Amino acid sequence: MAVFTVQEYKNRIENVKKEMAKQGIDILIAGNPANMNYLTGYDGKSYYVPQMIVVPIDEEIPYWIGRSMDRNGAKLTTWLPEDKLLFYEDHYVQSLVSHPMNYVADFFKQKKWDRKVIGMDLDLAFTAPRHYLEITKDLPNATFKDTSLLVNWVRIVKSDAEIEFIRNAAKIVDNAFDKTFEFMDVGVRESHAAAVLHHALIGGVGDIGGDYPSGPPTFLTGERASTAHYTWTDLPYEKDQLCLLETAGCYERYHCPMSRTIYFGTPPKELEELGKKTIEAIEVALDCIKPGVTCEEVEATWWKALGGGEVMKEVHRLGYSTGVGYPPDWGEHTASMRANDKTVLEPNMVFHLIPSVWDTNLAFSVSETVRVTETGCEPFATYPRKLYVK
Amino acid sequence: MAVFTVQEYKNRIENVKKEMAKQGIDILIAGNPANMNYLTGYDGKSYYVPQMIVVPIDEEIPYWIGRSMDRNGAKLTTWLPEDKLLFYEDHYVQSLVSHPMNYVADFFKQKKWDRKVIGMDLDLAFTAPRHYLEITKDLPNATFKDTSLLVNWVRIVKSDAEIEFIRNAAKIVDNAFDKTFEFMDVGVRESHAAAVLHHALIGGVGDIGGDYPSGPPTFLTGERASTAHYTWTDLPYEKDQLCLLETAGCYERYHCPMSRTIYFGTPPKELEELGKKTIEAIEVALDCIKPGVTCEEVEATWWKALGGGEVMKEVHRLGYSTGVGYPPDWGEHTASMRANDKTVLEPNMVFHLIPSVWDTNLAFSVSETVRVTETGCEPFATYPRKLYVK
Repeated sequence: MAVFTVQEYKNRIENVKKEMAKQGIDILIAGNPANMNYLTGYDGKSYYVPQMIVVPIDEEIPYWIGRSMDRNGAKLTTWLPEDKLLFYEDHYVQSLVSHPMNYVADFFKQKKWDRKVIGMDLDLAFTAPRHYLEITKDLPNATFKDTSLLVNWVRIVKSDAEIEFIRNAAKIVDNAFDKTFEFMDVGVRESHAAAVLHHALIGGVGDIGGDYPSGPPTFLTGERASTAHYTWTDLPYEKDQLCLLETAGCYERYHCPMSRTIYFGTPPKELEELGKKTIEAIEVALDCIKPGVTCEEVEATWWKALGGGEVMKEVHRLGYSTGVGYPPDWGEHTASMRANDKTVLEPNMVFHLIPSVWDTNLAFSVSETVRVTETGCEPFATYPRKLYVK
Repeated sequence: MAVFTVQEYKNRIENVKKEMAKQGIDILIAGNPANMNYLTGYDGKSYYVPQMIVVPIDEEIPYWIGRSMDRNGAKLTTWLPEDKLLFYEDHYVQSLVSHPMNYVADFFKQKKWDRKVIGMDLDLAFTAPRHYLEITKDLPNATFKDTSLLVNWVRIVKSDAEIEFIRNAAKIVDNAFDKTFEFMDVGVRESHAAAVLHHALIGGVGDIGGDYPSGPPTFLTGERASTAHYTWTDLPYEKDQLCLLETAGCYERYHCPMSRTIYFGTPPKELEELGKKTIEAIEVALDCIKPGVTCEEVEATWWKALGGGEVMKEVHRLGYSTGVGYPPDWGEHTASMRANDKTVLEPNMVFHLIPSVWDTNLAFSVSETVRVTETGCEPFATYPRKLYVK
């Protein structure tokens, strides 16, 4: 059984069909696992083989297409009736002679969709070039359009039910930071700290069981604080070391990312100052967020408050839209808080603001996942914004 | 610093170049994160943006190309000198007007590679159709060939250093099963069991710190035992429930997958019989494995020992090659133990044999990750093969 009401999924499909109509798409192939989950509830770690939700604009209920061994998973996790669950046999998998997209093309022919306008993810991981090459070869009279972010843009405004899931994820991440920072100390191995963090993220809080986040946590320690996407080592923490920890609470695939900074020993004055400045700047950014403001305005306000180029050498985006996700990332790939992003904020959009500030020898990270409200914004998590010291 | 010796990486590059020569490839674009790690040591959870190792057949050292913020990660984790680390600025990321592959094409033009034969992953996740469409548009005089599995096939025979990493992963997974099955019982929440498992997988054993496996564990419990790729819920285990647990120990991205079955209560006689039959059959398969035997012979021997079609309705492959990996899976996508796979076994190949047997109401799973030796095979893990009962 899917985790939201059938009505909620039907609303999502209707919103997607409106976009399809605008873009002139007859049949949408949605292959991103986050979009499959969003439209039907489908949940499985099976997306290393081709699988997709197919939305025909003139049928009420979409189709799930996947591997034969995953059909029972689709039965258990989606709201779709059994006759909408289509599957290809195992001999199509990682084969040199047949490809799952040949099966899909045969189904499209049988449905007489072979002269339709077909939308497909052309710029997302999970759709490989051969998926596109095989289906365009098999359906030479169809017209193909890139609809990589069509469903992602529909996802950007969350329902109240989705917001509740992110609230649960926030409870998980608050507790996980608390447990992990309590455990971390000089002499403790990074891998043991990561173990405590995972225990808290997966075990959850009270009745709220945790789900696996779409990316592993980053424990950027010592010289690795200069990197962005490293995980952890099995070395012990040392005195006078800095660690930037970023992770996300996850509940039923919905994420609440968070980042904080910890220092072992007496922090250098420069780090304290950098921390203070970074926290003040994110607070100015949070004050600026409300419906009607654009993403680039939030970023510009933050950049000004931070003192911009005087502090940072490289410009990265301040934040990005987040919500439902699968590995490798929990970003939605739609709106970003950065220069030239004209997206206008609306209530129930959710952003992760992560102004990680790297200097030559220093780094400080503090982030918040926030909901745009009717009048401003509210952070989901409650873990204090400060430089943690051990 | 990369985790293997520079000489080992150079050997790997030489083996890849031999394959490139055979297939007539001048320049190889290796975009799969496992292949990037294999060739250079690069380790980061940054592969939601385009990144690649570029191997020119007539240069000694390959190039890393990625996002600007990940260059420091490449500096820290690869053996490549700094002048081989190329990066595109952040404005290329998730942009409507420019694409990282335009940057790559510009670099290729500058190197005068625009009339060369270029090999590219056309059937792997992480290379999206647009990557292919952009670079072929920008380099109209180059010839493109699909080299999706070129590096994967080079990876199939492991070095002794890689085997040591898998041995460490085996110690981690043995300990993780032990801790988790000890904890699991009637009334225990699945999410709490998953928390204990994660704690053990990440914390590791003694000096051996754990890495995050490329896929989340599956706790296939009760009716979900009929699925293949489901994770866990936050429900408590009930009396007379069955749970199939599959996970992998991971050490420096090298995996040792394992699966076992546990029952809460007095197992039905049919389950005990199914378990016995499944264990006997995998033992026959293990006895059959040795250099010179083909993958399909192992599968056929196992199928016969199991009693084949009398037990299982659906045929899945018996096993697959495994080793280094990143989410979403730890499979190598090369040799599989299944009908028609003529791959001849060689020493230091590593396979995960996972004969999960589903019946209408019953399921039983027991698996082993094994190394092909000079004369037979040896399982990496030591956790006993049996039906666990609580």
